[in-house]
Amino acid sequence: MRQFHHEVSVSTRGKGLYDFTREVERWVSGCEITSGLLTLFIQHTSASLTIQENADPDVILDLNDYFGKIAPEDNRLYRHTVEGPDDMPAHIRTTLTQTQLSIPVTRGRMALGTWQGLYVFEHRSVPHRRSVILHLLGE
Amino acid sequence: MRQFHHEVSVSTRGKGLYDFTREVERWVSGCEITSGLLTLFIQHTSASLTIQENADPDVILDLNDYFGKIAPEDNRLYRHTVEGPDDMPAHIRTTLTQTQLSIPVTRGRMALGTWQGLYVFEHRSVPHRRSVILHLLGE
Amino acid sequence: MRQFHHEVSVSTRGKGLYDFTREVERWVSGCEITSGLLTLFIQHTSASLTIQENADPDVILDLNDYFGKIAPEDNRLYRHTVEGPDDMPAHIRTTLTQTQLSIPVTRGRMALGTWQGLYVFEHRSVPHRRSVILHLLGE
Repeated sequence: MRQFHHEVSVSTRGKGLYDFTREVERWVSGCEITSGLLTLFIQHTSASLTIQENADPDVILDLNDYFGKIAPEDNRLYRHTVEGPDDMPAHIRTTLTQTQLSIPVTRGRMALGTWQGLYVFEHRSVPHRRSVILHLLGE
Repeated sequence: MRQFHHEVSVSTRGKGLYDFTREVERWVSGCEITSGLLTLFIQHTSASLTIQENADPDVILDLNDYFGKIAPEDNRLYRHTVEGPDDMPAHIRTTLTQTQLSIPVTRGRMALGTWQGLYVFEHRSVPHRRSVILHLLGE
Repeated sequence: MRQFHHEVSVSTRGKGLYDFTREVERWVSGCEITSGLLTLFIQHTSASLTIQENADPDVILDLNDYFGKIAPEDNRLYRHTVEGPDDMPAHIRTTLTQTQLSIPVTRGRMALGTWQGLYVFEHRSVPHRRSVILHLLGE
């Protein structure tokens, strides 16, 4: 049994979902692990991870719109407003989605379904560099 | 340290929560792992996984109703409507719940609490077969 | 590769987020694992886990308020009301957050970002003792 660690940096340009499946696939492939478990962990509380459809780009636009509606940018609703109206909604959106994802690896590849892609879900309005830690365990 | 992979297929008959705890328990038991980590991963973006109460069936009926209300079936709200009014709400409901669950295994069994059951949460109206990948690592 | 199991009990005094990062850190440190994967699993369906900001305490107060609003305590909305008005909202709040978290361990420490803390999110009004199972795998 062997372990590998890696850090992926994803550049974001405002709220929305950023596909980074290919970058993770390439790294997993280079580790030459046939069978194991991959874990992705994002080191932030105002951006998150999600697995969603990779076919119709309208899905991720609609998702971003939906999260804009359920966590409104209205400073009167929150105590924590120091970084602007998108600050507390970003924490809420993060809590409603995932900070971590684990994916089985079989035959040297992530066991994703046909339509599944890996996304960083950015919840802040200004550009950020988001750090995702990858951990692969297997043989 | 040994690893095992398995695929469970769960048949669904419309929106709702489908208990598949027993099937997972049986497989874990057959692997004869005393101590380890079990990961469940659903290969879809319109059905998800959740751990919820296994005692009063009203809980899972209320949960299903709740998710019907927070992600309304109204095509005017979404761009992605190609597969019908339950299509985009299904992606939203998936994003608000889990695609993956990991559960420690101790004394040969999943370390579930007394009232915890494993559910596939179906978010589409028509019947589906949902594929869940199981990965067990331990000794 | 070695494995460790532990159980942490977190005492709660009503709805809100309870930071237990230090207690987890201490245990991980004592295991003397340099590189590996830590999994936290809460054995309840009316309390959950989340990773959120550990700097401004207003963030977790706002989060608790938000979850109070999206899952209202109104018995007319639910079938499952046997344990009081906070019963079914607690199950909903649990389903919208996490029952399990996995965190890579590098250089002997959890790979948390600077502002990330580990919280038990209590969703019931009366005090509880919540059991979180820890599993650490590594070398």
